[in-house]
Amino acid sequence: MPGSSFGHALRVTTFGESHGVAVGCVVDGCPAGVPLDASRISAWLARRRPGQGPHTSARAEADEPRILSGVYQGRTLGTPIAVMVENTDAKSQDYEGLADVFRPGHADFTWHARYGHRDPRGGGRASARETVGRVAAGAVAEAVLEALATASRRPPVRIVAWVQQMGPVTADSPDPAQLTVQRPEPMDHAVDPWTLTREQVDASPVRCPDAAASDRMLAALDDARRDRDSLGGVIRCVVFGVPAGWGDPVFDKLSGSLAHALGSLPAVKGVAFGSGFAAASMRGSQHNDPFVRQNSGAVGTATNYAGGLLGGISTGMPLVVDVAFKPVATIPQPQQAIGPEGPPQATTVTGRHDPCVLPRAVAIVEAAVALVLADHALRPARIEVVAGLEGA
Amino acid sequence: MPGSSFGHALRVTTFGESHGVAVGCVVDGCPAGVPLDASRISAWLARRRPGQGPHTSARAEADEPRILSGVYQGRTLGTPIAVMVENTDAKSQDYEGLADVFRPGHADFTWHARYGHRDPRGGGRASARETVGRVAAGAVAEAVLEALATASRRPPVRIVAWVQQMGPVTADSPDPAQLTVQRPEPMDHAVDPWTLTREQVDASPVRCPDAAASDRMLAALDDARRDRDSLGGVIRCVVFGVPAGWGDPVFDKLSGSLAHALGSLPAVKGVAFGSGFAAASMRGSQHNDPFVRQNSGAVGTATNYAGGLLGGISTGMPLVVDVAFKPVATIPQPQQAIGPEGPPQATTVTGRHDPCVLPRAVAIVEAAVALVLADHALRPARIEVVAGLEGA
Amino acid sequence: MPGSSFGHALRVTTFGESHGVAVGCVVDGCPAGVPLDASRISAWLARRRPGQGPHTSARAEADEPRILSGVYQGRTLGTPIAVMVENTDAKSQDYEGLADVFRPGHADFTWHARYGHRDPRGGGRASARETVGRVAAGAVAEAVLEALATASRRPPVRIVAWVQQMGPVTADSPDPAQLTVQRPEPMDHAVDPWTLTREQVDASPVRCPDAAASDRMLAALDDARRDRDSLGGVIRCVVFGVPAGWGDPVFDKLSGSLAHALGSLPAVKGVAFGSGFAAASMRGSQHNDPFVRQNSGAVGTATNYAGGLLGGISTGMPLVVDVAFKPVATIPQPQQAIGPEGPPQATTVTGRHDPCVLPRAVAIVEAAVALVLADHALRPARIEVVAGLEGA
Amino acid sequence: MPGSSFGHALRVTTFGESHGVAVGCVVDGCPAGVPLDASRISAWLARRRPGQGPHTSARAEADEPRILSGVYQGRTLGTPIAVMVENTDAKSQDYEGLADVFRPGHADFTWHARYGHRDPRGGGRASARETVGRVAAGAVAEAVLEALATASRRPPVRIVAWVQQMGPVTADSPDPAQLTVQRPEPMDHAVDPWTLTREQVDASPVRCPDAAASDRMLAALDDARRDRDSLGGVIRCVVFGVPAGWGDPVFDKLSGSLAHALGSLPAVKGVAFGSGFAAASMRGSQHNDPFVRQNSGAVGTATNYAGGLLGGISTGMPLVVDVAFKPVATIPQPQQAIGPEGPPQATTVTGRHDPCVLPRAVAIVEAAVALVLADHALRPARIEVVAGLEGA
Repeated sequence: MPGSSFGHALRVTTFGESHGVAVGCVVDGCPAGVPLDASRISAWLARRRPGQGPHTSARAEADEPRILSGVYQGRTLGTPIAVMVENTDAKSQDYEGLADVFRPGHADFTWHARYGHRDPRGGGRASARETVGRVAAGAVAEAVLEALATASRRPPVRIVAWVQQMGPVTADSPDPAQLTVQRPEPMDHAVDPWTLTREQVDASPVRCPDAAASDRMLAALDDARRDRDSLGGVIRCVVFGVPAGWGDPVFDKLSGSLAHALGSLPAVKGVAFGSGFAAASMRGSQHNDPFVRQNSGAVGTATNYAGGLLGGISTGMPLVVDVAFKPVATIPQPQQAIGPEGPPQATTVTGRHDPCVLPRAVAIVEAAVALVLADHALRPARIEVVAGLEGA
Repeated sequence: MPGSSFGHALRVTTFGESHGVAVGCVVDGCPAGVPLDASRISAWLARRRPGQGPHTSARAEADEPRILSGVYQGRTLGTPIAVMVENTDAKSQDYEGLADVFRPGHADFTWHARYGHRDPRGGGRASARETVGRVAAGAVAEAVLEALATASRRPPVRIVAWVQQMGPVTADSPDPAQLTVQRPEPMDHAVDPWTLTREQVDASPVRCPDAAASDRMLAALDDARRDRDSLGGVIRCVVFGVPAGWGDPVFDKLSGSLAHALGSLPAVKGVAFGSGFAAASMRGSQHNDPFVRQNSGAVGTATNYAGGLLGGISTGMPLVVDVAFKPVATIPQPQQAIGPEGPPQATTVTGRHDPCVLPRAVAIVEAAVALVLADHALRPARIEVVAGLEGA
Repeated sequence: MPGSSFGHALRVTTFGESHGVAVGCVVDGCPAGVPLDASRISAWLARRRPGQGPHTSARAEADEPRILSGVYQGRTLGTPIAVMVENTDAKSQDYEGLADVFRPGHADFTWHARYGHRDPRGGGRASARETVGRVAAGAVAEAVLEALATASRRPPVRIVAWVQQMGPVTADSPDPAQLTVQRPEPMDHAVDPWTLTREQVDASPVRCPDAAASDRMLAALDDARRDRDSLGGVIRCVVFGVPAGWGDPVFDKLSGSLAHALGSLPAVKGVAFGSGFAAASMRGSQHNDPFVRQNSGAVGTATNYAGGLLGGISTGMPLVVDVAFKPVATIPQPQQAIGPEGPPQATTVTGRHDPCVLPRAVAIVEAAVALVLADHALRPARIEVVAGLEGA
Repeated sequence: MPGSSFGHALRVTTFGESHGVAVGCVVDGCPAGVPLDASRISAWLARRRPGQGPHTSARAEADEPRILSGVYQGRTLGTPIAVMVENTDAKSQDYEGLADVFRPGHADFTWHARYGHRDPRGGGRASARETVGRVAAGAVAEAVLEALATASRRPPVRIVAWVQQMGPVTADSPDPAQLTVQRPEPMDHAVDPWTLTREQVDASPVRCPDAAASDRMLAALDDARRDRDSLGGVIRCVVFGVPAGWGDPVFDKLSGSLAHALGSLPAVKGVAFGSGFAAASMRGSQHNDPFVRQNSGAVGTATNYAGGLLGGISTGMPLVVDVAFKPVATIPQPQQAIGPEGPPQATTVTGRHDPCVLPRAVAIVEAAVALVLADHALRPARIEVVAGLEGA
């Protein structure tokens, strides 16, 4: 059964194995007329690319995307946009002998159980390299969001994510409840989501814009590496500029779609909106965000425990999403692996892997969020609005 | 755009407003020959029904499901199964005057922003009454899972959920990491997932099978009610008996589908698998569950931080999912509401509502999980297995 | 697997067996604000209802539709619209003894082969009674098309079908090639599609607006009835007012969607657009419709062999579709039936059936076309147009 | 909105413009373990390739398919199979000056009306070159059907199509009614579908296995070419070996899916099953195929007016489908073209085109049918059969 597609109005299908010929995606449903070129996709892919520093995998893919279709003279045609990235630096020999070894914490066993026939090289399609297709599609989705904002004379949607936690270290960021459209003065946290740019995030080698925490995360990474171990963490993503009214109840609430897109990312163990699991301990009188009238006349809220979502539909306040990642499964120390037959055996996995996937996963989370938002931005809900479809 | 359907092989579409004529669902894709009658659906609906005690809403719907199609002589026909539950006790007058009031914490404002025209009575389709359709469909899904296990001569899939946390009170349950197929001896927790039945869960008025915690939760509910306030909480769901190999990478991983189904439930703020957000603080050497050979010869793991999922595919270990709910938004005290125009005003909402939705949400979570599992159980993955489709 | 849904932006799911509790549909994706009430659906259902005269089945269903959800104060809510029609006059005893008899020309055998367990009463879901759900949904679809035209200040889309052929009798209608937006003067055919109304069609007991042909069709029906036999025929559907530019290449071309919706109707053996099979004998110089500039400034064509479709997208010229129906399979004379075991046996089927389904199928064809058009009317294709989605 | 995908259990998405970088497809849902390599796809593409003789387009694409993913060691992985064919011989300069010219009979105008921004080179995505992706996917689908038959110990499904009519010339083939599983003796038609192979079809330069008709078709082609004109025609496709019981009522009947797949092909004006439009003139006593007991014990029919379909589900008799194609729109003589503004002007289109698309369309029709059948072969319908999914 098909399982590699996401989205209803804007639908992405990803393809590719880690050490196969190529990875990529087809984005179908993109309206015609959206400015798009390969450099935009390249820029996104560069942010998830391995080999960027001492703390990431040594695999040095160029990851140059090739747009095969759907774009002409710098604008989308309304037809499927196929993007391919060749796998140029796949050292498959690193994985020899792994065909019959199920590494702990990896998908080897479950893929074997499901498919029987599998590609053991680099984890095949279970590798996080699959997310190249998601990120390329996210770049297209962001282009859609931008073009839509321009045509609607709205400020653009701004999606920015960062490493909020890495192992034992947590960044000093505002509580989601503070994250209304109004920046508090003073804003006494190291991370300032109201002004945060991707460039600022990228300035940290671990993509944590709290400089002190970034340093501590680097130290924690060094500790983990020295111990031949790995770290997990939390990425926080905030989105400014989503108008009130996006989300298609009931299964396709914005919350449902975000949970789907983020919950299907590799290594993700949890997804939370706004107050998240902390909401479980609150009372209604605290959690209910009081409504206010903004200066613009728009309805707003004085706090944002809701994380920008009520009834699964956007409120116009910033979206706030937290995504928990488990520590990287591949660690260079002996572990109990097993095969289809026989007892478990202590095995040390070789290969090139990050001790922590979080810095590279920032772009992956942003891409997932962009896909959800662009998909929902293209879903009409009222007849008088739909009528706008027909004009030109 | 359609947003009320879920599932690919087994697809449910729900319909209905809280105070409209009826709520219900159509389940399409159910194979022929599954034993099913209305009493099974009734039993599920009874568990989510309001009016069950002093701590739940006073609304007294009979919630008698009527199967309109798809079943003949006690077995499914392979055709769509439509189930309708009439809204017999809707006191719409309680909601008069709310058409232009956006209650804090509710979906009034966002539905207005999206649709313009909305049904203000009882929250319309944004009401948790929408989940009647989900629960009825969950009953069908469980029947599919049972019939499938019987035909495959497997033990049935056992889905059981409970209130793990309510406001300040947490039940004494084993850590997900302990939840392998092997019950530890001694098992020194108040909640014993290995033997837990729905009857045991229902024996607690708050559906918490830790008797002491149940009492404390009741006291917390009394406190909240006295303070004209409400509580949130966490429901934990465990599933025993899922074979290794369910889940369709990449977007339709079992984790992605579960996150979608659970993340789209009303009032949910977070979803987590196995170790969940705690994974962010672990190291790989701790989180990687060592493989073991079970007595049956099957591959197993010695711990279950993974929560029964690797690469988004089931491992054969118990699934463990946590779902965080925010406190109920409707509280009988003045709050800052607002309308399409004008300033916010202190408003006290009347109507019949639970001070905590968790006890009733147990069945809703179980239904969502059953829908995901039945959908995935019907997705073939290997050619030699698919061939089994054709015989009879 | 689900097979009872159609449409992408506007999606209908039908349910129900001929002699079960009810038949009906759920329409999801309908925008909010569309005027709709049960009388519109009743009017559509009345046109497909049996028991209307001496030439149709004696089954006398009231076919009163009940809208269960999705409509409030006479306008759609943007939520799923569930419509139920109870089966009140099902005489199941007529079908006793048919459980193990596969009638020739019926779906008994193939449903047995597929499902094993089936409802033999009145053909179960294979009965044309299933189309009640399609027709109810078609009524909703037409309401969407009307509301969209109103909001866009366009003339409404006008869908009208009639019985073009019944057995040996063919109506005198213009060739599709003549069916441009410009009514030729003089128009020397008995059927005048440019001005034809449903009332005019319904004025004929066989729904053929060529009065002479209508009389001959009645005579042919009498002949067939006397011979205990049945007739087939062709329904032609024309649609005026579809703007240029509807259709989503490549699989979801308007032609592909129409073929899907019409080709899945009971008893349909062929679907053709414009010149249809006659195109096979033409040359390009004849078939290519020359472009002209209309007085309005819009692009038009001087002929319409294309039937209003180029590249599967609407041209702005009238859509012309022909649908061929086989003769009714149920005839009151002995035929070679068979069972799961044993030799074929001469069997005479009883029950109430039309000797020709065409008059009642006119509304079914119109409904199918309305569903396709409304689905496509809601699919945005350009970024500057999509932006219209957001305003109000 | 997405429009480039087809299928539910086996889903193909095609991409690519005629003169863009590449055309191709992604096939998702293919089970693991199906033998597949590029040569199988090459063989299919060779049959639709232009430049094969004096009567086809002079464009000389190598059309070498590159499998980017989803296959490892000669067998499918259960993951998406991406196939790319580069556009190596696109002479875009032939199309210069056509950006603002809408050629009659082409999709130029309608694509302009829909998308505004379009790729005028060679028709962009409206070109029949789009079908490269469909044909490549059809090759995969046939591999699935073969592997499924092998695993089920059934004879393989045999799909074979030919040019039944080209312009004024019709091949001498058996009437669909004769096309039961039993070859009549003597079989006195020039085309013998019971034994017909693709090699025999390909032996005719116009893919008509009636040698005399083939010669007359060649002559008709020469006439048309001399007159700077083009021809249409009919392709007939028969399928032997489809078991009884494929098809998912009601919208996804096998007939509905075939009509969708075939009705969305470029230049198709009609689709018919079995007796097709001739059924309109028959009586039930003639059209109802009498049931017989085959020697194998299986249920069969003595005639096959039904074309292998009852209630839209396969009967076990051969499928018979006719597809009508309009004459090629591109003809090298002056015609009335038009632009966005201004009056129509006589224009002569240059470029390389076939005077008749039928010979190349044979593989396209076969591919469409293969896609439908493989999609339906993978849809379970009974619980006891579905249980076979789980074994290995």
